[in-house]
Amino acid sequence: MKIIELKTPYLIFLANETRDGFVKTGHGIVEWRRTLCEGQLRLEGGTIDLGLPSMTIKDAVETNIGSLIIGTASIGGGIPDAWIDTLEDALLKGIDIVAGVHNHLKDVPRLREAAARSGARLVDIRIPPENIPVGNGRKRTGRRLLTVGTDCVVGKKYTALALEKDMKGRGMNVDFRASGQTGIMIAGKGIPIDAVVSDFVSGAAELLSPDNDADHWDIIEGQGGIIHPGYAAVSMGLLVGSQPDAFVVCHKANRMYIDGWDNFVLPTIQEVIERTVQIGKLTNAAIRCVGVSVNTSQLNPEEREKYLDDLSKEIELPCVDPLKDGTQEIIDHLNNEFNNK
Amino acid sequence: MKIIELKTPYLIFLANETRDGFVKTGHGIVEWRRTLCEGQLRLEGGTIDLGLPSMTIKDAVETNIGSLIIGTASIGGGIPDAWIDTLEDALLKGIDIVAGVHNHLKDVPRLREAAARSGARLVDIRIPPENIPVGNGRKRTGRRLLTVGTDCVVGKKYTALALEKDMKGRGMNVDFRASGQTGIMIAGKGIPIDAVVSDFVSGAAELLSPDNDADHWDIIEGQGGIIHPGYAAVSMGLLVGSQPDAFVVCHKANRMYIDGWDNFVLPTIQEVIERTVQIGKLTNAAIRCVGVSVNTSQLNPEEREKYLDDLSKEIELPCVDPLKDGTQEIIDHLNNEFNNK
Repeated sequence: MKIIELKTPYLIFLANETRDGFVKTGHGIVEWRRTLCEGQLRLEGGTIDLGLPSMTIKDAVETNIGSLIIGTASIGGGIPDAWIDTLEDALLKGIDIVAGVHNHLKDVPRLREAAARSGARLVDIRIPPENIPVGNGRKRTGRRLLTVGTDCVVGKKYTALALEKDMKGRGMNVDFRASGQTGIMIAGKGIPIDAVVSDFVSGAAELLSPDNDADHWDIIEGQGGIIHPGYAAVSMGLLVGSQPDAFVVCHKANRMYIDGWDNFVLPTIQEVIERTVQIGKLTNAAIRCVGVSVNTSQLNPEEREKYLDDLSKEIELPCVDPLKDGTQEIIDHLNNEFNNK
Repeated sequence: MKIIELKTPYLIFLANETRDGFVKTGHGIVEWRRTLCEGQLRLEGGTIDLGLPSMTIKDAVETNIGSLIIGTASIGGGIPDAWIDTLEDALLKGIDIVAGVHNHLKDVPRLREAAARSGARLVDIRIPPENIPVGNGRKRTGRRLLTVGTDCVVGKKYTALALEKDMKGRGMNVDFRASGQTGIMIAGKGIPIDAVVSDFVSGAAELLSPDNDADHWDIIEGQGGIIHPGYAAVSMGLLVGSQPDAFVVCHKANRMYIDGWDNFVLPTIQEVIERTVQIGKLTNAAIRCVGVSVNTSQLNPEEREKYLDDLSKEIELPCVDPLKDGTQEIIDHLNNEFNNK
């Protein structure tokens, strides 16, 4: 296994959760991959509804569920005792259990044993595959677009998924490539790039977007920030290994400082474009920025329009809020740049 | 334990090795830290002589040896059976065993058990400490110099050690900081930066060169290359976390392509300087190059002199081969740049 691959379809496990903010993973999967989701499973007391059919483990077996996805974050990190009976039952019936942040499946002996007995897997989405090679820098076939950011939590995953959706809508040959936990659950495969040992980050990025058809676009989920005191190494390896033809800069309007590093002024969009081009040229001499994706949730409608207009004039590229406007302007520009070449 | 720390003094274990090229680690420790080395231990058939007193484990106990350092690379990676009696004996007497590449100490049950019984440690120098934090970018006290490179295997460790030695010779307050396996054995402590998960590389670099006296220099061993298709992520994290005031570019004369990546033209020294300054400014606005260290082993004496002269004129900085000329010219320049500030 060179990249993590999840069995589909999914049953989303919501436990006894009542707080919507703790079910971001579940919501994200349903938003972007409704067709992969066959059902949801709540325990007693649970009130969250993703709009999926309710299912027992017995139903799940009949529906040929591949993976039970833990769609909620438990407090404290462990697997609550109240979950164990259900998860063990799923494993014994051959259904993989998939979990991310804070859920340590392998620390629970009953789950370990049930998995060993049936052959079902405990998939910890934070753990990268073994034997990732060092990046070789070889030019791969097909096209690649990477979302990069002025910071973390500025919409790199959202933008990549929105681009994939809008490009699919135009009949383009395109795939979202996941480099983070929620992204991997949505895509059904990927590599948690930030958990890869630094010697192998660009190699992992190469595995993430392998050779493909000449007209095919990989839309690669970015991580970190290329100008960031904590996460620049991750972004560097992902950029060099992805060898993107194109990139979109993601930004949050009105953010002034790097989130969590308040003595670091946020780099400008132009600085991120220049640095990304400089570094990206190593593995793709023709790398270019094709647009900017801005989270404008802090702006009112008039501010938003002016902000995006001013930015488009300054950067001379399409600038959109994908949540409000979609990504069509960026795709128009992308097609102009690449279709005739 | 936030960084690896080895117990001193050392006994260098040479096994039954007869080939000098397989004892680079042992030679390196003796070359740079003769005073840490109390003895060498050969098994039957071994012919390598590091010029240290021969010692048995009994002698080692009487000499209060802290660590037995495996100074030779075994073929195939495992620990040969012929080594086990001696290593087990050392462990049972409380002496740590330290090994690097290809030597999997913990895979040998007798060694594991002996260590558990006595409390001595099996130190695998390839495994970074746990709980390394994300880099915080906070400005630390003291001065730092990082060796960077146009490629791997161009003398980054050698240059850092030569600088430390020559600066110590002038009575300067200076410490070599090790980021790789052999370097850690030489320094007696450090972090194998290339083995750190990418999210934590700059955090590891921060641990490696903590706050220090205002006049103190950390000379930090570089890794990889900031313009490298395989290892740029490591170099990025090390650069950002080291927040160096100064850096020296290491280069091998006449190398044309990145070693092992033969379709990648080697970056120029000037390109490496510019990129290092651009990126390094994030955590140290005053970062500057203070010299170039060239491995000129491929050049004859006249070529060498002309090469270094021409390069000095082009770069307008001292350019030396530390193996031939030492690093005094670079230190002169460093002192001019920093002493009056």
